[in-house]
Amino acid sequence: MSQNNASPVSRSLLTPLKFLTRNAVTYEKKIAVVYGERRFTYSEFAQRVYLLASALKKAGLRSGDRVAFLAPNIPPMLEAHFGVPLAGGVLVAVNTRLASKEIAYILQHSGARFLCVDAELADLIRPVRSELPDLEHVIHIDDEVKLQSSPEGGLEGPEYEEFLQTGEPTELPVSIEDEEEIISINYTSGTTGRPKGVMFTHRGAYLNALGELIETGLTCESVYVWTLPMFHCNGWCFTWGLTASGGTHVCLRKFDPAVVWRLIRDEGVTHFCGAPVVLTALVNHPDRPATLMPSVTVGTAGAPPSPTILGQMGELNAKVVHMYGLTETYGPHTVCASQLTWKDLPADERAALQARQGVGFVATDPVRVVDENMQDVPSDGVTMGEVVMQGNNVMKGYYNDPKATATAFRSGWFHSGDIAVMHPDGYIELRDRGKDVIITGGENVSSIEVEQTIYRHPAVLEVAVVGVPHEKWGESPKAFVTCKEGASTTEEEIIEFCRGELAHFKCPTTIEFTALPKTSTGKIQKFVLREKEWAGREKRIQG
Amino acid sequence: MSQNNASPVSRSLLTPLKFLTRNAVTYEKKIAVVYGERRFTYSEFAQRVYLLASALKKAGLRSGDRVAFLAPNIPPMLEAHFGVPLAGGVLVAVNTRLASKEIAYILQHSGARFLCVDAELADLIRPVRSELPDLEHVIHIDDEVKLQSSPEGGLEGPEYEEFLQTGEPTELPVSIEDEEEIISINYTSGTTGRPKGVMFTHRGAYLNALGELIETGLTCESVYVWTLPMFHCNGWCFTWGLTASGGTHVCLRKFDPAVVWRLIRDEGVTHFCGAPVVLTALVNHPDRPATLMPSVTVGTAGAPPSPTILGQMGELNAKVVHMYGLTETYGPHTVCASQLTWKDLPADERAALQARQGVGFVATDPVRVVDENMQDVPSDGVTMGEVVMQGNNVMKGYYNDPKATATAFRSGWFHSGDIAVMHPDGYIELRDRGKDVIITGGENVSSIEVEQTIYRHPAVLEVAVVGVPHEKWGESPKAFVTCKEGASTTEEEIIEFCRGELAHFKCPTTIEFTALPKTSTGKIQKFVLREKEWAGREKRIQG
Repeated sequence: MSQNNASPVSRSLLTPLKFLTRNAVTYEKKIAVVYGERRFTYSEFAQRVYLLASALKKAGLRSGDRVAFLAPNIPPMLEAHFGVPLAGGVLVAVNTRLASKEIAYILQHSGARFLCVDAELADLIRPVRSELPDLEHVIHIDDEVKLQSSPEGGLEGPEYEEFLQTGEPTELPVSIEDEEEIISINYTSGTTGRPKGVMFTHRGAYLNALGELIETGLTCESVYVWTLPMFHCNGWCFTWGLTASGGTHVCLRKFDPAVVWRLIRDEGVTHFCGAPVVLTALVNHPDRPATLMPSVTVGTAGAPPSPTILGQMGELNAKVVHMYGLTETYGPHTVCASQLTWKDLPADERAALQARQGVGFVATDPVRVVDENMQDVPSDGVTMGEVVMQGNNVMKGYYNDPKATATAFRSGWFHSGDIAVMHPDGYIELRDRGKDVIITGGENVSSIEVEQTIYRHPAVLEVAVVGVPHEKWGESPKAFVTCKEGASTTEEEIIEFCRGELAHFKCPTTIEFTALPKTSTGKIQKFVLREKEWAGREKRIQG
Repeated sequence: MSQNNASPVSRSLLTPLKFLTRNAVTYEKKIAVVYGERRFTYSEFAQRVYLLASALKKAGLRSGDRVAFLAPNIPPMLEAHFGVPLAGGVLVAVNTRLASKEIAYILQHSGARFLCVDAELADLIRPVRSELPDLEHVIHIDDEVKLQSSPEGGLEGPEYEEFLQTGEPTELPVSIEDEEEIISINYTSGTTGRPKGVMFTHRGAYLNALGELIETGLTCESVYVWTLPMFHCNGWCFTWGLTASGGTHVCLRKFDPAVVWRLIRDEGVTHFCGAPVVLTALVNHPDRPATLMPSVTVGTAGAPPSPTILGQMGELNAKVVHMYGLTETYGPHTVCASQLTWKDLPADERAALQARQGVGFVATDPVRVVDENMQDVPSDGVTMGEVVMQGNNVMKGYYNDPKATATAFRSGWFHSGDIAVMHPDGYIELRDRGKDVIITGGENVSSIEVEQTIYRHPAVLEVAVVGVPHEKWGESPKAFVTCKEGASTTEEEIIEFCRGELAHFKCPTTIEFTALPKTSTGKIQKFVLREKEWAGREKRIQG
C-alpha cells in the first residue's frame, strides 16, 4: 500500500554526518576526543570538522572529489571521516603500511585531488609525488612528529592546523541529494593483484554504524581506544558509530600494548577493537592487569579468536564480541551472538561456540553459505560452501571497475570468496578465509600480488606463495620458487627485490627453491604446499 | 558523487519484519513471549506469525488491505504487528477504551476488511456490526475470556487459534516493493473532533524501533512487560524494537500494579514503559519492593514526569528514560539524554533537568521550536514557540485526509501543536501539550471533540471544556456550559448524554453552568477557565 509519495517532511537522508551535528548539541560540553594531553569536547570536535569542510571547499573541492588521508589514528584522521563528506568529498583513507608505489597506485586510481599526509609518513609520498599529476593539494600534519625538510621536496602546501584556520567554524548543511551517494572508498588488496576501491555509501555507513553501536553496546558513557586502524573500513565504521553514541574517542598514534594498558586504566576505556593478534599482544604484555574493572568490551574480527585468547580475555573480565566481515561489507557484518545458555557450558565448549562467525547483525540481512549453483548448503556444520551477502551493508561496488564489480556481484549476491559451513543453529563458521589470502598481523596479503612481484625477478620461472605459521603474526608469506634453467638467485635477493616493490609485511619471510606440485592439467596445487607447512599444527585455514 | 546506481545487491528494504525473521533463527530456542503460563520461543513466535500471515492471505487479504485489531496486550496483538504486514496488509490497532460509535468510525474510515476482536471487547462491536459493510471477516479471540453468545450476534467467523490453523507455519517473503509503503495506521483524536489515521511506513517503523532499542538500551537479555498499550503508536514501536533486540515480551491482559510487581519479580523484568500516571500507580502500590535488582529501565512519555515520581523511581534503583513524541512521530521522538555531570547534582535540580523533553533521538532529525514565521525562538528557556519535526520519524500523512495532512505539514515541517521553550543546552521543554488537549490517565482527549458532543444536547447554548486537576488521572475534562434561554439541564444529564456518545474517559467529570469569558471579538478564553481551576497548584500546562 503506497498512498501518496512520502513527503520530504517525512523522509530525511540517512547519513552518519548527522550523528556529529546531533551530538555537537546534545553532548556539547562532553569530551569527544582524547589525544595525549589534548581534549576536544563534542562542540570543539564539530567545530574542527566544520573548519576542515569549509577549508576544503574554499580550496576548491568540488562535489565528489576524492580526498586521500595518509595518517595514523590521530584526531585529523577522525575529523576527516566527517569533514571530507560534509564538504561533499569522498574520503580515501590509505593504509599507512603500504609501500610508496602501492600508495601511488591508489592515489592515481582514485584520482585524488587532495592528500593530507602525516609528517611521519611524508617519505612515502616524496618519491612518487611527480607521478601524481591529479594531486593538486597536499596538506601535511605536524603533530608529535614534525615535517623534516628533504632534498626530494614534494610536500608543498599548508600544515593541517593552518589549513583549518582558512575555514569557518559554523555548521555546514549536508550536501548530498541521495543517501546512496559515496562517502568513502577503501582500497583492499583482495585476492587479485591490484588494490580495488570499495565504495561505501552514506546509507550503508549510517546503518552499519548503528549496527556496530548496537552489537557492541556503545553508549554515551563509552570510552573507545583506537587500537584498530581507521584506514581499515573506516575503522569498521566505529568512527561514525562511536560518534553516534556520544562516547569518547581515545586517539593513538601507534599501537603499543604498554600505552594501551595505561590508557585503559587512566582514561577509563570501556571498548576497543582489534584482530586476535592485537588481543594476544595485549594479554601477553607484562603491564596486563589482573582484571579489568569495569568490564571492557572488545570487538574482534579479521581471524577467528582462538579458545586460548577467549579464555584469557574472559579472565580479564573482558567481554569479547566476535564479528566477521570484509571491506566489501563495511567491515563486520556478522556477530557471534551470545546465547544465555552458553554461560553454563565448560569454558572450552563455550569458546568453540564463540569462535564461530555467527549470524548477520540485527541491522544487516542474513548471510548465506551456498554451493556453486547458489543453493544453500545443508545446515550440518560439515558441508562447505561460499559465504555470500546482500543488502545495505554490502558495498556499492568497486570504484571504476565494473568488471570486478560484476564478478563479485554475480547471481545477485556479493561473493566473499570465504569458505564456511552452516551449523544447525544458523551460525556460520569459516573454513578458509579466502582461498589464498594470507593474514599476517591482522593485515590481508594477496598471495597473487606477491607472486606477481616475484615473477618479475629475471631468474624466476614459477612461484607459489602461501601463508605459513608465524609465532608473532599468526602467519607470514612463504614463497616456493622454481628458477629458470641456467639461472640462479638467493633467498636474500628475492626478499630484497620484494621489499623494493611491496609493503614489508607482504614480503615473504622464507623462500624455498623447489619444483611445484601440480594437477594433471598443470595447475599449481597450493594446498599441498600449505598442508606440508602446517602438518601437526592447529591450522587457522583448513581448506 | 553517485557512480552507478546502487545495485539490488547493495540495497535492501528497511522493514521491521526482518527483525523477527532474523531472530527466529538467531534466538530460535530463546523465550520470545511470556503470557501467564504460556511460553513461545522465537521460533514459535515466528511460526505463529507465519500462520497468521498465510491464513490472512488464504482468507482473501489483498496487498494494502486494512486489518483492524481490537485486543488487549495479549500474544495475538503482538503477532498482528508482524503477521498483518507480512501478509501485505496494513495494521489498524484500535484503542480498546473507545466507545462503540468511535470504533465504528475508525473501522469505516480505514475501510478495514478484516477485524480481529478479543471476546472481552465483543460487546463494543455487536451494536455497530450492521454499520460496517466493508468488514468482510471477523475473527474473535477466545483467550482467558471466552466469547459469550448474544442476541445481537454479529460475530460470525472463526476463533483466532482455529484461524491460525488454516495457514502455513513456513516463512513468507516480505512482499513490499518500497520501504515507504504503509505498515500501520494509528488513529488519534488529536485536537479536532474526528479521529485521524496516522500512517506509519516500514522505513519509519524500522528506524524508530532501532531508535527505541538504542535509547532504552534493549539487548537479548531484556525482559519487557507490556504495561503500555500496543494500540498506542504500536506500543511506541517497542513491538518491533524489542523483537529486534531478541528480548522477551511479557504480555498482560490488563494493567494491575500488583500483577506488574509480581511479573517484575518472577519474570526478571528489565524494562517497561508507561505514562507518569502508570509509574505513580506502581510506586504507590503496597506490593512495591524496597528496591529493584537488577535495575529496571522505565521509558516514560505522554506527560512530563514530576520530580516526585523521578525521585521515587530512583529510590527503587530504576533508570527513567524520559521521552516525548506524538502519534504523528511514531511515538517518542525526543529523549532527555542524561549528562554524566547530572549525577553530581542535588536530586531536585537533577529531576528538574530530567523533566525536560530533551533532544531528538540519535536516529531522528533535530526538533525545532519556532515562532509563527518558522524562525527558531531564542535558546533562552523562556521564549515559547511551537515544536516542529521533520524526517524519517514523522508520519507519512493522515490516511485519506490530504487537507489535514497539508495543514499539519505546512512550511515543510510537521506541526506538533505543542508549545515549548528551547533551553541554552539545546533541550526543549514543553509549556503546553497542545493548546487544548486534556491528558487523562495517559490518554489524549480532544476538548473540541467533547465540546462538539455536548453542543448536540438540545439545552446547551455554549460550552468550553478544559482539563482540571484530578488526583488519580492527572487531569480530567470539565465542561463549562451556558444553557439556551428558557432551557435547563443537569450535570448528571450532560454526563450521561456524553457517555452515550464517547468513551468514558473522555466524558467530563464535572459540569459548571456559567457564562463563558470571551475576548472582544467573541472568542472563548479557555485560558481564563484553566487558570481559575489550577490556581495555587503546580500545573502541568502553563500556557
